[in-house]
Amino acid sequence: MVADRLTGRFITLEGGEGVGKSTLQMALAERLRGMGIDVVTTREPGGTPLAERIRELALRPPENDGWSSMSEALLMNAARSDHLDKLIRPALTNGKWVISDRFSDSTLVYQSVKGGVAKDILLKIEAAVIADTRPDLTLVLDAPKSATDARRTSRGAQTDAFEARPSTFHEAVRSAFQTLAQSDPARCRLIDAGQTAEQVAEGAWQEIKALLSAQRASAP
Amino acid sequence: MVADRLTGRFITLEGGEGVGKSTLQMALAERLRGMGIDVVTTREPGGTPLAERIRELALRPPENDGWSSMSEALLMNAARSDHLDKLIRPALTNGKWVISDRFSDSTLVYQSVKGGVAKDILLKIEAAVIADTRPDLTLVLDAPKSATDARRTSRGAQTDAFEARPSTFHEAVRSAFQTLAQSDPARCRLIDAGQTAEQVAEGAWQEIKALLSAQRASAP
Repeated sequence: MVADRLTGRFITLEGGEGVGKSTLQMALAERLRGMGIDVVTTREPGGTPLAERIRELALRPPENDGWSSMSEALLMNAARSDHLDKLIRPALTNGKWVISDRFSDSTLVYQSVKGGVAKDILLKIEAAVIADTRPDLTLVLDAPKSATDARRTSRGAQTDAFEARPSTFHEAVRSAFQTLAQSDPARCRLIDAGQTAEQVAEGAWQEIKALLSAQRASAP
Repeated sequence: MVADRLTGRFITLEGGEGVGKSTLQMALAERLRGMGIDVVTTREPGGTPLAERIRELALRPPENDGWSSMSEALLMNAARSDHLDKLIRPALTNGKWVISDRFSDSTLVYQSVKGGVAKDILLKIEAAVIADTRPDLTLVLDAPKSATDARRTSRGAQTDAFEARPSTFHEAVRSAFQTLAQSDPARCRLIDAGQTAEQVAEGAWQEIKALLSAQRASAP
């Protein structure tokens, strides 16, 4: 396949903790690079030096203190704005593909589960920050908590403010991501993350191939 | 005068850099405490441990990097939400007076001068964050840059990201604060900050006395 003439594409990977987003990100980047496509891998919150500083502040508040839902939503969007301005948009403009481990859907999903901020204000902030830089494809990784617990234990993952939550919280997050994927089928694909990493990557790759085909069809 | 039965009041001090907000804050707190009123003095951005961490991040980005208007506005509001939840609202509920060196008007004024974020989204975020905790009185200190430069030099003030701007920026900020004060005369009083500190404090005190009188009139 020829990568010339392909324009940059923006792919986001979403889902709860430990569903295998970063593993899939590496697998997809490798396949795309194998086709000669320039790929930028990044993450949220974070992705730029300033946004990573917000990440640290947002995910690891000092002992005995914590962010309200409102503060957290605003911090995530402040980081996202920097990430878009300094990394995502310049990369896309230069014809690169961007694969982000989490993006705006995570903010909406976690806020919907935690509550405390009206959805209409969240959507207005999101629209102001994202403008027209919407993902071309969002892969929503879906798995029961039992599968993600096993994965997290095996990698000896550290626990952050998001991950140190009860099982009911994780189930609510999973359900909210499922609802999200169903509500925007043109952009989102739900992927069974209970499969092996190879099977997940292969399933995701089929979705990316559809994106590549659509590009080739529209190339001059 | 008897301070019993008085409910908490929220006073904000606004204006450009070096107009004497913190000097006035101390003078007003001293007078109110002399009347037996419990006063909390605070500032924005900041005022709580987490908000002070946002302040540090917002005002002193690393060399060769900087925040967009959008990120800055979101950071200021994230800090404000924490400040309101953990300091301002509890103090007012306990009948204390709160005097804050800057509040939401500063965000609107600096954003209007810098540009980059539509005013309607700023107002929507502000409304979601502040809800019904609007200041009872806002004293807007107004002085030409020549007066504020002299004050800043005499106190050997450090220069931060806001202060290290050209003269035209300061004049635009002054003008925006004047417009703000005129647009909300029920809440805002413009005070000539080119006077001596004693004269400024006396002028401000007349406004506070009016607030006290209104309280006594409505006390049971």
